[in-house]
Amino acid sequence: MAVTAEEVMATYEDLAKLEAQFDDVETETIRYQHKITKPLYAKRAEVVAKISSFWSLVFEQAPMEIDESIQPTDSALLLGSIHNFSVERFEIDSDIENGEPRSVLFRFEFNENEYFEDKVIEKKFWWRYGKDGTIGYVSEPVNIKWKDGKDLTNGLLALARAAWEEDQAVPKKDGKDKKEKALGPAASALKKKMEEHEGAVSFFAWFGFVGEKISAEENAEVVAKKKAGEEIEAEDTEMQDGDDEDWEDEDDLEDLEIFPNGDDVAMALADDLWPNALKYFTAAQDDDLGSDIEFESGDEDEEDEEEGSSAQKPSKKKHKGCAHGCEH
Amino acid sequence: MAVTAEEVMATYEDLAKLEAQFDDVETETIRYQHKITKPLYAKRAEVVAKISSFWSLVFEQAPMEIDESIQPTDSALLLGSIHNFSVERFEIDSDIENGEPRSVLFRFEFNENEYFEDKVIEKKFWWRYGKDGTIGYVSEPVNIKWKDGKDLTNGLLALARAAWEEDQAVPKKDGKDKKEKALGPAASALKKKMEEHEGAVSFFAWFGFVGEKISAEENAEVVAKKKAGEEIEAEDTEMQDGDDEDWEDEDDLEDLEIFPNGDDVAMALADDLWPNALKYFTAAQDDDLGSDIEFESGDEDEEDEEEGSSAQKPSKKKHKGCAHGCEH
Repeated sequence: MAVTAEEVMATYEDLAKLEAQFDDVETETIRYQHKITKPLYAKRAEVVAKISSFWSLVFEQAPMEIDESIQPTDSALLLGSIHNFSVERFEIDSDIENGEPRSVLFRFEFNENEYFEDKVIEKKFWWRYGKDGTIGYVSEPVNIKWKDGKDLTNGLLALARAAWEEDQAVPKKDGKDKKEKALGPAASALKKKMEEHEGAVSFFAWFGFVGEKISAEENAEVVAKKKAGEEIEAEDTEMQDGDDEDWEDEDDLEDLEIFPNGDDVAMALADDLWPNALKYFTAAQDDDLGSDIEFESGDEDEEDEEEGSSAQKPSKKKHKGCAHGCEH
Repeated sequence: MAVTAEEVMATYEDLAKLEAQFDDVETETIRYQHKITKPLYAKRAEVVAKISSFWSLVFEQAPMEIDESIQPTDSALLLGSIHNFSVERFEIDSDIENGEPRSVLFRFEFNENEYFEDKVIEKKFWWRYGKDGTIGYVSEPVNIKWKDGKDLTNGLLALARAAWEEDQAVPKKDGKDKKEKALGPAASALKKKMEEHEGAVSFFAWFGFVGEKISAEENAEVVAKKKAGEEIEAEDTEMQDGDDEDWEDEDDLEDLEIFPNGDDVAMALADDLWPNALKYFTAAQDDDLGSDIEFESGDEDEEDEEEGSSAQKPSKKKHKGCAHGCEH
């Protein structure tokens, strides 16, 4: 019994449908997990507030995707000054039925430091579905108020923000006009800066990540169709021979991403570091033998007294990666 | 307001309790996910049965933990002969309330090949809790019937199985006697073979992974205590000065693990490759432009006819790591 061309097509259609169904089930799982874990996160925040070095130690043990992004020049600031960190799934509660559970807000709280003025830096990642079948994170560059001569991103972050604002200010056009749009002055300056930039890019350039170009409206349209069970037609991605200008245009835009794997880092933060923070903290203690764990105290002078008691640690455990048992 | 030694201890107790609660919530999440995903896995198995190269292509795109374990000398066999692959959470359904959802059975089905006689190789990983606070996978070495001169593990796997059987045959003793137990002939031979072994270890040595030494009885005891909300006392891990023979003994046992990160590979297979197989398959097609996808057919001669229609592919998507959005 030979396989016909129709059967082959049918198989690929089945695969595409199945992939969409797997995606739905994943969404439901994340939503369920969020619901049953939320009270524990609140409890954890209370407990770890008593340990001033908690998040610093967790970031020290960060999973690979994050660890690789933290340059030696970032460590003093990130590990030395981070005071609190939290992840909020900000769309999930907005509409119980349709709230996207993958959309996340990261909130970094810093102590007074020699690098920047900010006490809190927040960054949002929206999980969105595009008409062309793309699924991914959309974000906006966030500025940091660097002190004089202390910008670890060497001006990249400020330009990424300026280029993004410039782009937002231009009315959006569809179709052909889009790709004829020339780079504005900020985007041109950013492009030049990126070409000139030498060496590794700072972790703080992550705050400049832009991601997919999918508007809230486009996402809403695709999600509505998806819910209605309609086929999602790949409207824009059909490659036509001799018309590959779209690809060039896409390259240009991607070239202006100062932290290209910003979405990977966001996922590692939200789906690994955040749920497994206690495990990473325990790992840090195993490394340090608890010697430099500092407890929060109103009276700094009395801290020495507690040093001797840090031998009271939870028993050593295997650290088993992300909340679902995946190792990173 | 100074932190007292009692407060420090209380904080660590809170952390340990919280970690146990996080673990419970994770268990519940995996159970829920299994329940709602199970019908999709069945559907997927039906659809991918029509694509003979499906699992071969998925393994070709395997996540890092797995990919790093596949040596060039393994590729011809693993990628060339794998016919089917499945993951079963074999404890979850045995007892709805207590079934451990992390325990997994891997089933590899192979075509007739020049390396071994086996058509099916299965390996089980039991997720167990130890009295000393250890949590992790326990497994048993599985033999492979290699054809003459074709053993990719160079005898390691057979010896690992023999050493394990030898160990099982010796009645278990508690306490001091345990560490005085000398290595048996098979274990000694394995130790020697491992010391002599040169170069990278084959992926097929993974079937020899042993993991944690936690019996079903010990696990049942700890799980029962955990359910009853009792504190899990770390009975055996208290280090006493001048008595570190336990550690030497542990080293000896770990030295005899022919595939030390076998548990990481098991997790990557169960929690990443298996749930995301469709994404990895799509990624493989994007790489190959679908040129060498073969469809299953009763009549091999007519396969050529279908080649032209493989352009019908699902639209390109971002591949977003494990089922929970973590990138690996």
